Amino acid sequence: MREDGGVTQLHDLSSRGFASDNYSGVHPEILGAITRANGAHQIAYGEDVYTARLQEVFAEHFGPGVEAFPVFNGTGANVIGLQSMLPRWGAVVCASTAHINSDEAGAPEKVAGIKLLTVDTPDGKLTPALIDQQAWGWGDEHRAQPLVVSITQTTELGTLYTVDEVRAIADHAHAHGMKLHMDGARLSNAAASLGLPFRAFTRDAGVDVLSFGGTKNGMMYGECVVVLNPEASDGLIYLRKLNMQLASKMRFISAQLIALLENDLWRRNAGHANEMAARLRAALERGVADGSIPGVSFSQATQSNAVFAVVPAGVADRLRESFRFYDWDAARNEVRWMCGFDTTEEDIDAFVDALKKELAAR
Amino acid sequence: MREDGGVTQLHDLSSRGFASDNYSGVHPEILGAITRANGAHQIAYGEDVYTARLQEVFAEHFGPGVEAFPVFNGTGANVIGLQSMLPRWGAVVCASTAHINSDEAGAPEKVAGIKLLTVDTPDGKLTPALIDQQAWGWGDEHRAQPLVVSITQTTELGTLYTVDEVRAIADHAHAHGMKLHMDGARLSNAAASLGLPFRAFTRDAGVDVLSFGGTKNGMMYGECVVVLNPEASDGLIYLRKLNMQLASKMRFISAQLIALLENDLWRRNAGHANEMAARLRAALERGVADGSIPGVSFSQATQSNAVFAVVPAGVADRLRESFRFYDWDAARNEVRWMCGFDTTEEDIDAFVDALKKELAAR
Amino acid sequence: MREDGGVTQLHDLSSRGFASDNYSGVHPEILGAITRANGAHQIAYGEDVYTARLQEVFAEHFGPGVEAFPVFNGTGANVIGLQSMLPRWGAVVCASTAHINSDEAGAPEKVAGIKLLTVDTPDGKLTPALIDQQAWGWGDEHRAQPLVVSITQTTELGTLYTVDEVRAIADHAHAHGMKLHMDGARLSNAAASLGLPFRAFTRDAGVDVLSFGGTKNGMMYGECVVVLNPEASDGLIYLRKLNMQLASKMRFISAQLIALLENDLWRRNAGHANEMAARLRAALERGVADGSIPGVSFSQATQSNAVFAVVPAGVADRLRESFRFYDWDAARNEVRWMCGFDTTEEDIDAFVDALKKELAAR
Amino acid sequence: MREDGGVTQLHDLSSRGFASDNYSGVHPEILGAITRANGAHQIAYGEDVYTARLQEVFAEHFGPGVEAFPVFNGTGANVIGLQSMLPRWGAVVCASTAHINSDEAGAPEKVAGIKLLTVDTPDGKLTPALIDQQAWGWGDEHRAQPLVVSITQTTELGTLYTVDEVRAIADHAHAHGMKLHMDGARLSNAAASLGLPFRAFTRDAGVDVLSFGGTKNGMMYGECVVVLNPEASDGLIYLRKLNMQLASKMRFISAQLIALLENDLWRRNAGHANEMAARLRAALERGVADGSIPGVSFSQATQSNAVFAVVPAGVADRLRESFRFYDWDAARNEVRWMCGFDTTEEDIDAFVDALKKELAAR
Repeated sequence: MREDGGVTQLHDLSSRGFASDNYSGVHPEILGAITRANGAHQIAYGEDVYTARLQEVFAEHFGPGVEAFPVFNGTGANVIGLQSMLPRWGAVVCASTAHINSDEAGAPEKVAGIKLLTVDTPDGKLTPALIDQQAWGWGDEHRAQPLVVSITQTTELGTLYTVDEVRAIADHAHAHGMKLHMDGARLSNAAASLGLPFRAFTRDAGVDVLSFGGTKNGMMYGECVVVLNPEASDGLIYLRKLNMQLASKMRFISAQLIALLENDLWRRNAGHANEMAARLRAALERGVADGSIPGVSFSQATQSNAVFAVVPAGVADRLRESFRFYDWDAARNEVRWMCGFDTTEEDIDAFVDALKKELAAR
Repeated sequence: MREDGGVTQLHDLSSRGFASDNYSGVHPEILGAITRANGAHQIAYGEDVYTARLQEVFAEHFGPGVEAFPVFNGTGANVIGLQSMLPRWGAVVCASTAHINSDEAGAPEKVAGIKLLTVDTPDGKLTPALIDQQAWGWGDEHRAQPLVVSITQTTELGTLYTVDEVRAIADHAHAHGMKLHMDGARLSNAAASLGLPFRAFTRDAGVDVLSFGGTKNGMMYGECVVVLNPEASDGLIYLRKLNMQLASKMRFISAQLIALLENDLWRRNAGHANEMAARLRAALERGVADGSIPGVSFSQATQSNAVFAVVPAGVADRLRESFRFYDWDAARNEVRWMCGFDTTEEDIDAFVDALKKELAAR
Repeated sequence: MREDGGVTQLHDLSSRGFASDNYSGVHPEILGAITRANGAHQIAYGEDVYTARLQEVFAEHFGPGVEAFPVFNGTGANVIGLQSMLPRWGAVVCASTAHINSDEAGAPEKVAGIKLLTVDTPDGKLTPALIDQQAWGWGDEHRAQPLVVSITQTTELGTLYTVDEVRAIADHAHAHGMKLHMDGARLSNAAASLGLPFRAFTRDAGVDVLSFGGTKNGMMYGECVVVLNPEASDGLIYLRKLNMQLASKMRFISAQLIALLENDLWRRNAGHANEMAARLRAALERGVADGSIPGVSFSQATQSNAVFAVVPAGVADRLRESFRFYDWDAARNEVRWMCGFDTTEEDIDAFVDALKKELAAR
Repeated sequence: MREDGGVTQLHDLSSRGFASDNYSGVHPEILGAITRANGAHQIAYGEDVYTARLQEVFAEHFGPGVEAFPVFNGTGANVIGLQSMLPRWGAVVCASTAHINSDEAGAPEKVAGIKLLTVDTPDGKLTPALIDQQAWGWGDEHRAQPLVVSITQTTELGTLYTVDEVRAIADHAHAHGMKLHMDGARLSNAAASLGLPFRAFTRDAGVDVLSFGGTKNGMMYGECVVVLNPEASDGLIYLRKLNMQLASKMRFISAQLIALLENDLWRRNAGHANEMAARLRAALERGVADGSIPGVSFSQATQSNAVFAVVPAGVADRLRESFRFYDWDAARNEVRWMCGFDTTEEDIDAFVDALKKELAAR
């Protein structure tokens, strides 16, 4: 039996860049967990022992009574989580930069019939005052009813809500009869950056339903809807299936999540990614200060694993010949450099050197 | 680094039954392929080298010009495939036993707004005459327009369409301006049973769009929408994303599919499962003939990896204390025994023995 | 000012047939009510005095506590009524001949994401036993959950549920945690035929939500969702708007419904239509008996305003040159002859004569 | 027979205000047209002679080849018009103040799965530059594809696009592969204000699909989707039915539209409403100039039948005790005063007097 699957390794094993934390592969401990969960039969669709164990693992991190629903991907987690919180006439207040608004191809609207009421923000973070721009009109049948607030932690701009900021939003939402959803595609980066356990800035701060991210932190696939407040969510067991997010061999998602959560892998991976971003930011700031990186400025704080910068025109495209990364707002030469669990110090140093050379050559 | 993911192996490695081919784990060659595809960075969302290679692999099996869209699961493959074939006012003619009608929680209706026009069949197989029960009313705005026929190969009842039967349906559908969709969750079992290459009973027989199954044949997760006739499908690239079926680390689905298709693993796995079902059927028939298996009859032909039987009342429940399997129609004591790539001859023999003992004890 | 609207009268004022009770125009009392409600300003979208009065009128007919939501048409009434009774994962058990299944172009599935679980019936009527063919699988996430039963009174086949039959269905549904919806597009015909007040065979018999029909009984446009059991329905105020069924000048729908319900017009109109169908049926039966109408038989009982018959091949098409009516099942020469509030005795007699002549000429 | 419908006239015939042009009743010529279209039988669902004639009437106004689809209301016209222009993955660029975004309870998202990409504007009017804020990302599967631009004429803020402005938007949209939709709930007000035939600023300026409004200009109910460019729209015949916007007795909508369009009633009604708004604006401006209306300013130009003003705090609520009207933005004391076909000079004068008294009493 050919245990390599007979598949020729086609890719360049030295290639790494700063495009996204989902360009990475799978952490070896995750692969190990998959292998351990393999073999023999397990009941499909979530009645396996790993998914049962996963409930305990989430309870250890978030407290008793939480319910975990593994799904395939982050869009799925967000859409079914939100749908479980809303009647058909509901709407969600979110930042205009929220992934659910800007990167999910209209899935919330098209699959779930959810209207998004968007608010422009300077840094991807909502506040009670910003929420109030859209949180009104309850009881008016002409307005989709704003019944959920959704925030992203860490945000799509690499910024971070503090515990107090989350709690202020939760209190505000609840006071107006709204629930609080958190898109935690990078929740581990937030926990590592805050130096806090997950529950401190989620359940204990008033979050009702959470999308817990795994793929961007070393998993192969799989995220998890975590219901922190069971009164805030209904029918997830059905919504997951009908929305095509129910894995038959669920044990393999659950085993990955267990591997991430049981042995601190979530923190090791996310903490490392954060450190690499901090290292990049620091090196860039030194370069700006000493003149070796002229014309570069920063458009967002670096509070997790991303650096948002504005670079001189033309520089990004030439730099991309060696390192992949994305424009964030091409019109103003804003780029995003994202670090992952597998980013190395050498990657950072080589990138900073390349940037300096590119700027010097202009 | 703990390469076992630190995850304790929780499950009984000796447990196997006849419940479903998705109770199995992952074939070692599939795991090997995943490992080979790991490491370094690859562009997310399908622009990786494995997904590019997958296009060539599907072209080798189905001929040039086919387009392959890896997705997470079979429900996803079916729903987005059908949606890509239909305008918003379209309907699908299918058997009432079709998975899309009976096992997907209304996903076609609820996610995609597709009306299913169902037909009762004796064996899960449509025919032109059966299709005509629902294929009418074109141009009548009061009727959801029947524009696609969907068949399952092998069917949910373990039966099989011959090449001629598929072609007759395709010709009939096309003659009425309808397209032909095939749910191929167990397409490999069909190819192995027919002893034919995939294209002989799909593309060459007139199938327009195919759901190619992997999970039930040894993969961890992942299926693939294969567009055999590009004129019959539109917008899959968008539909996959907005329907939450776009994997970020797609290389790992593609590598699994390559492993299945490149080295005949699809045939080895499916052929074995079929053989095990044949072995089971033969042993049961012998027992019926020699009186050692009294009161058991067969409700469907065994043409792939399933045996459908009617057993004396009470027997199924007691037998299930040792071997998991499902009732198919509890009202008439009909059960389904499903074999997979990992079913062994010993499993079959032990099961037949247990059945004999159970029947003798009555 | 040209009070005739300057519009030339284009249609033949003598034309009447047996196609449908919605080929009729508007009853003069309805037009009178519209005129009375005209002039000056009234708050739009249902906060007008006529819609307020309508609540009282419905309470007079159905008892205190019912809630009436006027909408534009019957499809709208059915879809939003059902949607208000169901979570997103819900399904509706109905006869395969139900209007919601066969004549609404997939609106329940496409607009509301409702899966219909259909049952074949001999006469368009469900029974507890027939319902049980589809009412199962609660708690199984792979099956759209059967949470509502929908029946039509009078049925699409002109048949009628007795009070006891409705009550048996309601009790059966409720015992299984399902709710009962009634499509009452021709509810007035049922009440007139049964000789009972509306509430006797709706609310008092256990119906939870009702579509009350007006257009087929002399109104210009407008139907009404009537919530008989407020615990069985949620969010109609929002669902009506978001599903595009909220009339801005609602006073004109409400005034029509008041005219129908306040002065017995509903009974006069529907009773007359029923009588005309009975007259037609009696004349035909006499003709069959005396040999003047050879080869004609009846496929359904005539219990309201429709006659379903099977006629010799070719007869229907020739007869239609003089009188419009529809084939019901062209394959077996089954036709439907429908009477309305404006059908006259002369219409019936002329039609029977024409049929006799047509049959004699063969 | 009681031709008054037996319905007691419940409302105060002297009540008129400035809340909305849909608080009005029905113009007598419209009622006359309905009466003329009544009686005898006409084929239901649009195959009647009045709907046939309506096609000619629209061709007279918009040129040959246009297709008119009468529907129940404006939300319905907008949603099905847009849906007919878009694949399932499409999005619509519109002003954030657009009725489809702010007043339709999420119908575009919830019924039609359309994502709205909104742009803030100072005056409710899009421009090519404003459109470009959202018109990007074609081919990127992560972004709902911006394939239609929707503008409202006259806008929700009472402003007006010139012919050149519409044409610039149409050219810009078409150059980027997008289509142009116009919400013409108040199209007659625009034509009257511009002093132009409808086609000059719609079809001839590049609009592809139009919602033609009737209810706000003296009709009882009914609007019309007018396809100006048949290549830009597909399947309306089906979409109208499945979206519950197909009237069975369509002759009565068509007759109303004919009455509006055949005898210049559209212009008489809309022109009068515009004049009344101009009279109100002029009187207010005189009062501001001479000091008799202190503290009032105008937030939008008055280019059709609405006046948007900012009034001193508290004044609006007290004034509303006598005249109904809506706050537009309560936070900044902005109100909307809307005139209709039935607004009289006396209404205006009385309202201005009341405002002056109210301001003097402060």
